[in-house]
Amino acid sequence: MKRIAVLTSGGDSPGMNAAIRAVVRKGHHHGLEVWGVRRGYTGLIQGDMIEMSLGSVGDIIHRGGTILHSARSEEFKTAQGQEQAVANLKQKGIDGLVVIGGDGSFRGAQKLTERGFPTVGVPGTIDNDIPGTDFTIGFDTAVNTVIDCIDKIRDTATSHERTYIVEVMGRDAGDIAIWAGLADGAESILIPEAPYQLDQIVERLSRGSKRGKKHSIIIVAEGVGSAVEIGRQIKEKTGSETRVTVLGHIQRGGSPTAHDRVLASRMGAEAVDLLLQGKSDYMVAIQANQITGLPFEEAFAMKHQPDMSIYHLAEILAI
Amino acid sequence: MKRIAVLTSGGDSPGMNAAIRAVVRKGHHHGLEVWGVRRGYTGLIQGDMIEMSLGSVGDIIHRGGTILHSARSEEFKTAQGQEQAVANLKQKGIDGLVVIGGDGSFRGAQKLTERGFPTVGVPGTIDNDIPGTDFTIGFDTAVNTVIDCIDKIRDTATSHERTYIVEVMGRDAGDIAIWAGLADGAESILIPEAPYQLDQIVERLSRGSKRGKKHSIIIVAEGVGSAVEIGRQIKEKTGSETRVTVLGHIQRGGSPTAHDRVLASRMGAEAVDLLLQGKSDYMVAIQANQITGLPFEEAFAMKHQPDMSIYHLAEILAI
Amino acid sequence: MKRIAVLTSGGDSPGMNAAIRAVVRKGHHHGLEVWGVRRGYTGLIQGDMIEMSLGSVGDIIHRGGTILHSARSEEFKTAQGQEQAVANLKQKGIDGLVVIGGDGSFRGAQKLTERGFPTVGVPGTIDNDIPGTDFTIGFDTAVNTVIDCIDKIRDTATSHERTYIVEVMGRDAGDIAIWAGLADGAESILIPEAPYQLDQIVERLSRGSKRGKKHSIIIVAEGVGSAVEIGRQIKEKTGSETRVTVLGHIQRGGSPTAHDRVLASRMGAEAVDLLLQGKSDYMVAIQANQITGLPFEEAFAMKHQPDMSIYHLAEILAI
Amino acid sequence: MKRIAVLTSGGDSPGMNAAIRAVVRKGHHHGLEVWGVRRGYTGLIQGDMIEMSLGSVGDIIHRGGTILHSARSEEFKTAQGQEQAVANLKQKGIDGLVVIGGDGSFRGAQKLTERGFPTVGVPGTIDNDIPGTDFTIGFDTAVNTVIDCIDKIRDTATSHERTYIVEVMGRDAGDIAIWAGLADGAESILIPEAPYQLDQIVERLSRGSKRGKKHSIIIVAEGVGSAVEIGRQIKEKTGSETRVTVLGHIQRGGSPTAHDRVLASRMGAEAVDLLLQGKSDYMVAIQANQITGLPFEEAFAMKHQPDMSIYHLAEILAI
Repeated sequence: MKRIAVLTSGGDSPGMNAAIRAVVRKGHHHGLEVWGVRRGYTGLIQGDMIEMSLGSVGDIIHRGGTILHSARSEEFKTAQGQEQAVANLKQKGIDGLVVIGGDGSFRGAQKLTERGFPTVGVPGTIDNDIPGTDFTIGFDTAVNTVIDCIDKIRDTATSHERTYIVEVMGRDAGDIAIWAGLADGAESILIPEAPYQLDQIVERLSRGSKRGKKHSIIIVAEGVGSAVEIGRQIKEKTGSETRVTVLGHIQRGGSPTAHDRVLASRMGAEAVDLLLQGKSDYMVAIQANQITGLPFEEAFAMKHQPDMSIYHLAEILAI
Repeated sequence: MKRIAVLTSGGDSPGMNAAIRAVVRKGHHHGLEVWGVRRGYTGLIQGDMIEMSLGSVGDIIHRGGTILHSARSEEFKTAQGQEQAVANLKQKGIDGLVVIGGDGSFRGAQKLTERGFPTVGVPGTIDNDIPGTDFTIGFDTAVNTVIDCIDKIRDTATSHERTYIVEVMGRDAGDIAIWAGLADGAESILIPEAPYQLDQIVERLSRGSKRGKKHSIIIVAEGVGSAVEIGRQIKEKTGSETRVTVLGHIQRGGSPTAHDRVLASRMGAEAVDLLLQGKSDYMVAIQANQITGLPFEEAFAMKHQPDMSIYHLAEILAI
Repeated sequence: MKRIAVLTSGGDSPGMNAAIRAVVRKGHHHGLEVWGVRRGYTGLIQGDMIEMSLGSVGDIIHRGGTILHSARSEEFKTAQGQEQAVANLKQKGIDGLVVIGGDGSFRGAQKLTERGFPTVGVPGTIDNDIPGTDFTIGFDTAVNTVIDCIDKIRDTATSHERTYIVEVMGRDAGDIAIWAGLADGAESILIPEAPYQLDQIVERLSRGSKRGKKHSIIIVAEGVGSAVEIGRQIKEKTGSETRVTVLGHIQRGGSPTAHDRVLASRMGAEAVDLLLQGKSDYMVAIQANQITGLPFEEAFAMKHQPDMSIYHLAEILAI
Repeated sequence: MKRIAVLTSGGDSPGMNAAIRAVVRKGHHHGLEVWGVRRGYTGLIQGDMIEMSLGSVGDIIHRGGTILHSARSEEFKTAQGQEQAVANLKQKGIDGLVVIGGDGSFRGAQKLTERGFPTVGVPGTIDNDIPGTDFTIGFDTAVNTVIDCIDKIRDTATSHERTYIVEVMGRDAGDIAIWAGLADGAESILIPEAPYQLDQIVERLSRGSKRGKKHSIIIVAEGVGSAVEIGRQIKEKTGSETRVTVLGHIQRGGSPTAHDRVLASRMGAEAVDLLLQGKSDYMVAIQANQITGLPFEEAFAMKHQPDMSIYHLAEILAI
């Protein structure tokens, strides 16, 4: 192996730049040439790639987003697009590809492997919803962004003695909601993995209010449904006003936390090692606090589950 | 004058606690007793007030929200409510009242003055929409919260090369939108004070895109209309996707900036001085960088105008 | 077990309040009465303790420091002090004690256990230097504080093309230096666990400079020696100026990160469970991402080692 | 005037990039070519300058430091160096120069004007010590950085009930100390403009301690003397320990606040206007909240004075 490439794909997440830096620097450390592909699979099909020097990834470890940009590609879903991608890689003499992204991006990587091209995936998504790894790059930053926001909302919630409903990201996974919920003492946490009962929420609100709580915060993962609609239902039941905030895209940005920079650096470096060991169709993971690798197939056979002990503890502590 | 009281009313804003601290400490400095009224005019009618020692305002200067809480009071709009409020103040032997809040709260203060009770207002609102003062307490913090959020959105906007629309607070005033817009290099700023033309926005977007801009950010003050609707219109015109974020209540919270803590401290202290000078029906203001006071009537005769030179400069610099 | 107590001891760390909250709320959840001891072992000897209601720990999860305060106690090192402490606990009918602090505090807890009083320790220190647990409460926040500071120093380092030396906490342990070093791309990391060679540092500086690096950052754990002295040595060798910053006590403060709030909540809750299970002379730990417990003796028989793979990776990636 | 240049000189300050952006974009708006000189007067002598397009200043408004870099130049103090600088400017066909920096940098600009080259200065320094302007670019950010740090120190100060001494920047000017001192409720503020009396400080400490204050914070501007030495003196007098933190270079960095971004944008744009109006030997200023310009000579004839009313108010409110 003499030449590898790296791309970022899907929704961006904080720490992707740290992962790119690690791939480039670890590659150079092993005497490899490293190429960067721009705009994910779109750029792969277009052959939009450049060689990356050591200096090309200087001063990016602390930046949100991805210097390689990201995009969705409809064309890559076709056989023709995939063939073109492999042809472009081979034409440049590239022997292996690191794909930083979520599980959609990993399925794209598998398409390349099916066509004989070695790929290794690095889990980068704020949602923490990739099976096989305890944490994904960007999750810790996103949770910290959420709690910074909720800490601010708490100020105004306390001043006005109201109930606030905060919608956070997580279409299929409640991880952000659960962690932010425990970290912020939310009264109720609504996640796709557990059905919610309006009566229970209302009961918790009234119990809190009785024991003198100055505010209540309810966190809703977007996959559960509209926070606005849930707010309306609560108002109907309780008669008291609720205020709704949808945090949105700010959760994807920001300078990565130390945790995400370290995780991304370790994962990016491991991806290079895996390629050098001849692994393909593989993803990097952190399991039980150890960096490791596993086949995509093995990961895809599992189902991601958030840590429900945290969910239940949050419930007990926000009494 | 031997005994004064202080309350916070209306929407809370960061720095209100610093203002309360200044009223209490400056009052003590002049040998006054200072009382705190809880939950604004609601607490005034209920007689919910406590004496505040020097220590009662320790360790609050850096906290968002208001330790005295705030609330809206329908009852205070009635003559009966106002009479009850004055009766409660007199019964406690209180000689003057400092009202920290927005112009609605100031109009409430005037009702007390009409009934013979001396009041001084301190402008506390994130919207910066009070005539007679260049800045209000909380505005600087709110603008900084907005730019922190937009800096995060910018990461993801750059990674995906998209247009983002961000709705900020400001029902009647474009100040937050204008300052955040210049501070963040927004392509377009939509404010209640200036009609917007969709064609112009679209033209700016396409010009930026032609010269290689990787993202565009449009800031919309809530008074202009729904950011979601504006996003829909832009998509219709340009065919390209937009992403919308409504920042909401996080703009009201957070630890106040140095600017707001200093402004609040100076204004709170000035309010005590004005009461001691026998002023009433008055508000504290900062004009041309000087702390001063002016009659409510004089302020209400003016119309708040945001600094349009900043608006126009933003347009030029975001070319 | 009907009544337990909790105290914080030694240097404070962000997340201690979240741990106190968890002890109190989890205790109440199990029907226990929970008492808070003020100022660590000093308060224990003085009998300075109060019952803690559910509401007493409201609105503290996001606050740095410890609402129970902390102090060093010379008196507690004496047999008399320890006897007094046990007597005070028994006199209040308290059956078990949770000690939140570092290993010095745990050795204090052991003294109580030797006298027959059940204790469980919760590892709270920014230094991450307690054997038996992968992470301690406050470490993640401290590392994030350090990287925020270094990100700022980087701005000015880049502008002036200089070498900056940053001294971080860690008298015996290099964990903060190592994590912050990898997270910030520091050129060299000096830790107590590894001897440093000036020649190597100088060589790395000159190599970086040759390949066009605009700045260099060297992180020094305080246990290694004075950053000022190291700066002087580097200047002597290289002839070029260095700037030194000693981060100091800001590393102990700040609102805890999500990671520390969650860790503290889990650990505080686990401490209550361990007491209820009849465990004593025990500490809570996180190992391989699982919350668990182990006897103090077992922990003290180990030696804390920072993750040297992170140290070596940092070296490779900052090439 | 067809072609102008811009440079940054002296210590960098947050907002310099926003000022560069404003010079470049406002210049283009008026049909000018704009050149950027690298590394201040050093680059001017070396002829190290490049043309700056609209896009060259994209995505920098929120970044600390200066993309043009800064340096000190001994050579520029010589007649030969100054002649070379003017020759380089003329050779490129440049008609005017904007110098962003402190008063040392302005005196350099005057040397060019003496040789017939038009210059306008933009006040960029965190110290706020330039006569003729109420505020300089970077001051607001520096004060906010200081209060963020002191807020963290406060956590640990409260937990341990100790006295903390914090040294902030300001060799000749107490502005940062004064503003941070009021904003953070510091017990004592030591500035170069006012002699300090140890007895008074000690008396304030003991008064605070008597009325139950949990911590004390003393802010020392670096021009007053070593914080470590002052700490030693206080310990000698009071017998109680103090902890000292020297904030150092982190005060120069960080993403600029909204205030600094807006101020820098307005000042950079005004500098271009002044050059176009034929002004030279001039500096941009903000006075009484208005952007304006005045001759260097006029500014240098004044003496910068911090707002002592803020200093005195801080003393009253930290009672």
